[in-house]
Amino acid sequence: MRDIVVFSGSAHRELAAHICAELAVPLSPAETSRFSNDCLQAQLLANCRQRDVYIVQPLVAPTQDHLMELLLMIDAARGASAAQITAVIPHYAYARSDKKDASRISLGGRLVADMLVTAGVDRVLTMTLHAPQVHGFFSVPVDHLTAIGVLADHFRDHDLRDAVVVSPDLGNAKTATQFARLLGLPVAAGSKQRLGDDRVVIDAIVGDVAGKRAIILDDEIATGGSIIELLERLAEQGCQEAAVACTHGLFAGKAVERLRSHPMVSEVVTTDTVPAPTDWPELRVRSVAGLFAEAISRIHAGESVSSLFDGVDPSHAPPRPTLFDPVHA
Amino acid sequence: MRDIVVFSGSAHRELAAHICAELAVPLSPAETSRFSNDCLQAQLLANCRQRDVYIVQPLVAPTQDHLMELLLMIDAARGASAAQITAVIPHYAYARSDKKDASRISLGGRLVADMLVTAGVDRVLTMTLHAPQVHGFFSVPVDHLTAIGVLADHFRDHDLRDAVVVSPDLGNAKTATQFARLLGLPVAAGSKQRLGDDRVVIDAIVGDVAGKRAIILDDEIATGGSIIELLERLAEQGCQEAAVACTHGLFAGKAVERLRSHPMVSEVVTTDTVPAPTDWPELRVRSVAGLFAEAISRIHAGESVSSLFDGVDPSHAPPRPTLFDPVHA
Amino acid sequence: MRDIVVFSGSAHRELAAHICAELAVPLSPAETSRFSNDCLQAQLLANCRQRDVYIVQPLVAPTQDHLMELLLMIDAARGASAAQITAVIPHYAYARSDKKDASRISLGGRLVADMLVTAGVDRVLTMTLHAPQVHGFFSVPVDHLTAIGVLADHFRDHDLRDAVVVSPDLGNAKTATQFARLLGLPVAAGSKQRLGDDRVVIDAIVGDVAGKRAIILDDEIATGGSIIELLERLAEQGCQEAAVACTHGLFAGKAVERLRSHPMVSEVVTTDTVPAPTDWPELRVRSVAGLFAEAISRIHAGESVSSLFDGVDPSHAPPRPTLFDPVHA
Amino acid sequence: MRDIVVFSGSAHRELAAHICAELAVPLSPAETSRFSNDCLQAQLLANCRQRDVYIVQPLVAPTQDHLMELLLMIDAARGASAAQITAVIPHYAYARSDKKDASRISLGGRLVADMLVTAGVDRVLTMTLHAPQVHGFFSVPVDHLTAIGVLADHFRDHDLRDAVVVSPDLGNAKTATQFARLLGLPVAAGSKQRLGDDRVVIDAIVGDVAGKRAIILDDEIATGGSIIELLERLAEQGCQEAAVACTHGLFAGKAVERLRSHPMVSEVVTTDTVPAPTDWPELRVRSVAGLFAEAISRIHAGESVSSLFDGVDPSHAPPRPTLFDPVHA
Amino acid sequence: MRDIVVFSGSAHRELAAHICAELAVPLSPAETSRFSNDCLQAQLLANCRQRDVYIVQPLVAPTQDHLMELLLMIDAARGASAAQITAVIPHYAYARSDKKDASRISLGGRLVADMLVTAGVDRVLTMTLHAPQVHGFFSVPVDHLTAIGVLADHFRDHDLRDAVVVSPDLGNAKTATQFARLLGLPVAAGSKQRLGDDRVVIDAIVGDVAGKRAIILDDEIATGGSIIELLERLAEQGCQEAAVACTHGLFAGKAVERLRSHPMVSEVVTTDTVPAPTDWPELRVRSVAGLFAEAISRIHAGESVSSLFDGVDPSHAPPRPTLFDPVHA
Amino acid sequence: MRDIVVFSGSAHRELAAHICAELAVPLSPAETSRFSNDCLQAQLLANCRQRDVYIVQPLVAPTQDHLMELLLMIDAARGASAAQITAVIPHYAYARSDKKDASRISLGGRLVADMLVTAGVDRVLTMTLHAPQVHGFFSVPVDHLTAIGVLADHFRDHDLRDAVVVSPDLGNAKTATQFARLLGLPVAAGSKQRLGDDRVVIDAIVGDVAGKRAIILDDEIATGGSIIELLERLAEQGCQEAAVACTHGLFAGKAVERLRSHPMVSEVVTTDTVPAPTDWPELRVRSVAGLFAEAISRIHAGESVSSLFDGVDPSHAPPRPTLFDPVHA
Repeated sequence: MRDIVVFSGSAHRELAAHICAELAVPLSPAETSRFSNDCLQAQLLANCRQRDVYIVQPLVAPTQDHLMELLLMIDAARGASAAQITAVIPHYAYARSDKKDASRISLGGRLVADMLVTAGVDRVLTMTLHAPQVHGFFSVPVDHLTAIGVLADHFRDHDLRDAVVVSPDLGNAKTATQFARLLGLPVAAGSKQRLGDDRVVIDAIVGDVAGKRAIILDDEIATGGSIIELLERLAEQGCQEAAVACTHGLFAGKAVERLRSHPMVSEVVTTDTVPAPTDWPELRVRSVAGLFAEAISRIHAGESVSSLFDGVDPSHAPPRPTLFDPVHA
Repeated sequence: MRDIVVFSGSAHRELAAHICAELAVPLSPAETSRFSNDCLQAQLLANCRQRDVYIVQPLVAPTQDHLMELLLMIDAARGASAAQITAVIPHYAYARSDKKDASRISLGGRLVADMLVTAGVDRVLTMTLHAPQVHGFFSVPVDHLTAIGVLADHFRDHDLRDAVVVSPDLGNAKTATQFARLLGLPVAAGSKQRLGDDRVVIDAIVGDVAGKRAIILDDEIATGGSIIELLERLAEQGCQEAAVACTHGLFAGKAVERLRSHPMVSEVVTTDTVPAPTDWPELRVRSVAGLFAEAISRIHAGESVSSLFDGVDPSHAPPRPTLFDPVHA
Repeated sequence: MRDIVVFSGSAHRELAAHICAELAVPLSPAETSRFSNDCLQAQLLANCRQRDVYIVQPLVAPTQDHLMELLLMIDAARGASAAQITAVIPHYAYARSDKKDASRISLGGRLVADMLVTAGVDRVLTMTLHAPQVHGFFSVPVDHLTAIGVLADHFRDHDLRDAVVVSPDLGNAKTATQFARLLGLPVAAGSKQRLGDDRVVIDAIVGDVAGKRAIILDDEIATGGSIIELLERLAEQGCQEAAVACTHGLFAGKAVERLRSHPMVSEVVTTDTVPAPTDWPELRVRSVAGLFAEAISRIHAGESVSSLFDGVDPSHAPPRPTLFDPVHA
Repeated sequence: MRDIVVFSGSAHRELAAHICAELAVPLSPAETSRFSNDCLQAQLLANCRQRDVYIVQPLVAPTQDHLMELLLMIDAARGASAAQITAVIPHYAYARSDKKDASRISLGGRLVADMLVTAGVDRVLTMTLHAPQVHGFFSVPVDHLTAIGVLADHFRDHDLRDAVVVSPDLGNAKTATQFARLLGLPVAAGSKQRLGDDRVVIDAIVGDVAGKRAIILDDEIATGGSIIELLERLAEQGCQEAAVACTHGLFAGKAVERLRSHPMVSEVVTTDTVPAPTDWPELRVRSVAGLFAEAISRIHAGESVSSLFDGVDPSHAPPRPTLFDPVHA
Repeated sequence: MRDIVVFSGSAHRELAAHICAELAVPLSPAETSRFSNDCLQAQLLANCRQRDVYIVQPLVAPTQDHLMELLLMIDAARGASAAQITAVIPHYAYARSDKKDASRISLGGRLVADMLVTAGVDRVLTMTLHAPQVHGFFSVPVDHLTAIGVLADHFRDHDLRDAVVVSPDLGNAKTATQFARLLGLPVAAGSKQRLGDDRVVIDAIVGDVAGKRAIILDDEIATGGSIIELLERLAEQGCQEAAVACTHGLFAGKAVERLRSHPMVSEVVTTDTVPAPTDWPELRVRSVAGLFAEAISRIHAGESVSSLFDGVDPSHAPPRPTLFDPVHA
Repeated sequence: MRDIVVFSGSAHRELAAHICAELAVPLSPAETSRFSNDCLQAQLLANCRQRDVYIVQPLVAPTQDHLMELLLMIDAARGASAAQITAVIPHYAYARSDKKDASRISLGGRLVADMLVTAGVDRVLTMTLHAPQVHGFFSVPVDHLTAIGVLADHFRDHDLRDAVVVSPDLGNAKTATQFARLLGLPVAAGSKQRLGDDRVVIDAIVGDVAGKRAIILDDEIATGGSIIELLERLAEQGCQEAAVACTHGLFAGKAVERLRSHPMVSEVVTTDTVPAPTDWPELRVRSVAGLFAEAISRIHAGESVSSLFDGVDPSHAPPRPTLFDPVHA
């Protein structure tokens, strides 16, 4: 069997190390240089020939540098005769550019997918794409993992009486529905309205939240602006407490400040698809390294990745009603 | 300037003729033969050399035959040295296959997009894709028209007091919101729940519909099952009357029977992106031929297509508040 | 060694099952759904990851549906990280569209070859292409089997005195010549003349057939029209009896009626590249499942496929004169 | 309108000059250098930017040098921002490699087609491909001219009583049939038999030739071996005189010697798709420069090329019976 | 004629404006947004349909952001049906990554070229690539301008007695030789030696510089380290004064500080392919906007770009001896 | 493990046999036929299915025939389902066409690289490309070997006192510098001047050569013209003796005559990347077959190829100072 070689870009070495530990393979060294003209160059310092190469790099800020570093590492692996190259992109940030909602705009989600293929990638392993259709932007196989099982596990031992899962956006309520069913909870959602050209506000909550404790679920939290707005609407409708959960916890700009001290927020939980902010000790971070390691192991061994999500994600397999019984018993 | 040549496949010659009439160009003849082994062959009977060729074919049943006919016509046009080939696909049915919601399933929306490019298409002109992300499945430019202006026009002279726009699905409520704003109306939406493996039911309505008259808006009506279910929920919540509007009125299976005689349904309005059922004289059909003709004309003349939707579709241009004043005056 | 996984489309499950039986591997389950808008979706129900996937689907009527099903299955296998995908197309019906014999017509044989590659196929395994040049339409390796050994075997125990092999068409006489040499027989051929625009008639027989018994060999019989015409010319030249042999027995339209009861026809023999008509018990069907199984086995094991036809098909290896001695002794 | 720029490789400058004279455009200068390591380099000495570039080069011996020169000229034109590049290949010699008639052989006809596309060609203009299926080897438009009208014209003023058109090969009799119908003559053909591994002999004539004067038609004459053999068979069957006509008169090896002095051969006529041998003054050469010039002119003007063959070649348009009346009157 | 539309990325709007002024066309507006997750999105605010689009963006720091912005703008122009897209990249920084000088390193110069093509570029217009071979990394036409004429013009009115042109690197001395001949001067060059793994020093000067005044010519100055080292060697060999000229004046890190106050440096001259440092008023900047404007104008009009360099760059046309007579007279 | 199959084109069977001997695998038979129209056809006479195929062919005169033979063999191997195809091109002659040094010229180095990929090559194994940037012309992995270790070995036991390594061209002095350091020698280089349009002369030597013995190192010697000119300049500067070393010893035209009897030339040493001239017994030929065999073996086994050059070529690994101590001790 061909050996696994795992490299990490500079975006999140800690996650890569964690995945390697779970896989019981060493993290192979690589070096990225920056020329004085600000161009990057990647060098892989372990033999790739005829090997299955995995390169771990979430697309976090500085996003363009991390993207280019990933592309150069793929290029280097291809030139070094790797047998197969899998880009492990726990957070594919460009998925947000998934549609043309104005004239003559770029479609970054598709463009970056094509650039990865141009560089020589054979497969992409990612988690929680902003929209499931983004899967179709890739012309190579994509193994698309979900963190909702990991996030639901976090809440399993909580007191879930009077809890309700709340999605910030009507348009993305499906995953929240799935998550709610894992926990046996009802679901509600914010309704967004567009003001003028480019401002969007949440103007209503659909679903019953009065007197309940919310578990807000979002795929990605950047500045936290939508969450804050949602909290205001929830408060107006008589919901005084909320836990916040998301897969990709970017917490950019004032997000930490806004969320950490918010009187309504009981806790914030996220995963390690991206590095956690350093100034927020109370943030709960659940690791997805085990999921990625298991997926890599199955890819390498030719075993089914989708069966990894039996009972968790109906897009992989239908939920089995009995699965959750012990939890709620 | 290079001449326009318009051909029609056999799916909807009436629409093609209508578009040509609006463009004041003849519909050029083409012939599709079926061999005794059931293979198809297309022949274009007008010179294509150095011309801008447009081939009109919505993907309606028998869908595979119509798709193959379209591909063969594109292939013939390419082989005949057409300067540019635009597939005019008013209804891109394969857009429904836009995500991997189960293991190892095909992604028809992307595959068919790639097949069109393989056959030689240079551009696609279509209307109301099932999800806006499907745009990104194409590696060639897509001009994506919307019928909501045409459908909203239909309701402009109605009595809209107490009316509410209702989307059958939380997940697709954005277009309904847009449509509602064109008419200055509130919006509500059905919430779907998955039962067992593959059954989905609408189990609730989010938004206030009691005592109101609904205008249900959907992108496509096939069997009409979702609409019937939505009507039941609306009735339970005290809404007794509904108009039904959709862009793509396929009305397959028992749809005509179900909707034509439904006591709650005041009227059904659709467009001619697909052929209308022959046994439903009361069906209101608004033509989008003018929109397609105008788009073709602008494509050919190198003018902006997006400006065609100024004030109608914020994904093309921001809504101008004054546009709707006369309506609400 | 990577496992073999064999799927079947819905065109000819019996042949796929037969091939699997010969290979001693199970036929893996797959499911094709038809949406209410007549679009198809394929789902493969067995793990494909890192496996050699074979998908069996002859292109028989309804040809477009079967072609699309095959393409969707290939797409699903690719998306599921199959190591190699071989389309097993026992009858590649679009091979008949192999040349531009009129202006601005499609070239389906090449287009469908390109579509298969677009969907993700790595190799094609087929039998008796209408013209050998069609091989060159594919940009992936093609393993091209011949049934003339199997058909010749059928006649080995017949009384072959006074027999003559007859090809319906001068233009395709080469395979008939090969077949005739396998049986040690002379060959004759019909000469076709074009009447007006699109009617073609057989107006003469080249070669001596008077008083002989014909074995008519054709690659494909669809409506049987050419065969009937050929029989008339044979009768005019004093040939009163004919056996009919073909690789692809489509027997469309009135073919069964015409051939089954024809007074000159002693027997009709074909293979199971396509499903046999259900209303013709006397039809002799020789199975090529063994040949396909052997080819798949050799492809998988990295052994020569061409050596499978040593002594049978000079395009694979030169005929050895001694091979046929026992037959004629 | 974009200007036409015509270049010639070194294979047949006379034909290129002739085509340019007919087009009334100058032949633009180009220079091919041979480095001391025998590599070639092409330089185009006229501006190509935004122009329609035509490069004339039949693939005659030394074939590989001429092919490479053509590819380098295409590459240079592409690099120089030509708007469109048409390779004018009057004789596409690699068309003879059109099928896999042995294991593991190259398929030069397809490979060279792909190489031309790799170099950057947008269209191919050629004449009398060895098999019509070779058209399908190209992924770019091919304009495929026929010389049978020009060759038939040559015989129009001959005494055609007792004449019969003879094709050397059963397998290629279709063009001979077409040619015969243009002259209102019957057709016959040689039947080839394979001896041992690689020797092929003509062992019979199908069709009546006794006491007739043959007009042998072949697409290409290289060494003339098949023609000589055919003449022997014709003589055996009582045919004592033959004219020989072909599109591509390569006359390689001993062909001139064999044919020039053959007692049965009344005349040999060919075209100027390739340079004529210098040592054969009696050879009749009909120019196809006018046809190529007309095709280029129509391609450039966006007019139909196929209509150029109305009444001549049924693959372009059906023969009109009245066309030939004056000839036979 | 199709209209020219010129956009600028954010790297060097001043140059783009200057080029537009020379072309007498407006600079069309475009907008780049940065999402809170640091992804970029480009929107072109002028109609591109059927137009020749030029996007001006040198690859200067932050290089990755500017590269991605350029790619997204190309993507947007392609999606907006531009007729032709030319990336105007006055400084193609990734050209420095032009060879594999260590194992398993990326080859950024080729990768970025492929990425530009993936995004949809049709042509690249650039200046002074680090190595002329980088031209061959592009699969689309490249118009490659040189600034040595502009730089030589700068020195034409200087007192050039005792002047010598000096190249910092033996390996790149060709352009210096060309430049020297434009001014009728002799040439010398530094010889580099590698110390240990990655340190390179200039250890000698080849050519006579004692008592002369040097004009150092380099393609790009980044940190200026090589220049400083070269100045030391020159001083050791008795050369006390040097002017410094380069095409791409990046002046990164301590370059301004090092060069501005260096006692040997009489003046530094560069061009505006990249923005000039703001803190160096004495820097002489010669504009290449006129050259780019003229090239764009010729590309658009289908005129020769190479003739723009007659007498300047022998790679475009041979030098005419008389051209420089007035200078040296 | 997949078997290795090695084929040889007709350019240099001796080298292929030598490589096979080192690898201890048989040289598999292949046959190239030349049709009477001068087209080539290749047939591989050993099973390639699922095997690692290596095809050995340096591009020597007749270069076009050898290139086409190589392409056809690659095409045949691909069609025969080879697992991986490596073109072993010890001398990639088209590397000399690596830049556009005149308007509208072809870029053969890139074009041939693309043609190899079009034919189906998966990897290229080559030696001493004319410029290191040519590596970037290939879109497949290139393993680029160097012969300078082998050539340096040749001189290890020579008396190297007063020796100096001389490169004929300033522009290519880097490899000479590397070679000089392997032997602990100083380096000098010729400076070329362009006279008129296309004549280039060496007009000076940079570096000290007076009274020394030169070791001239060039990558390729074709006619030897540059070497002769260099010898004249060396003599003028007081250097009376020179050894000549090169990787690719083409010795075309009058090269043998010029060099064999030149009074200054003490010896000429080259490698067997190309066949040696038959009329020069004194020529010293060092074999690189061992290097190629080792590289093939490592490619096949998935081991590092670059480590093969540890201490020899800093582009593979940094030189270790201690490595050469024993040599000079």
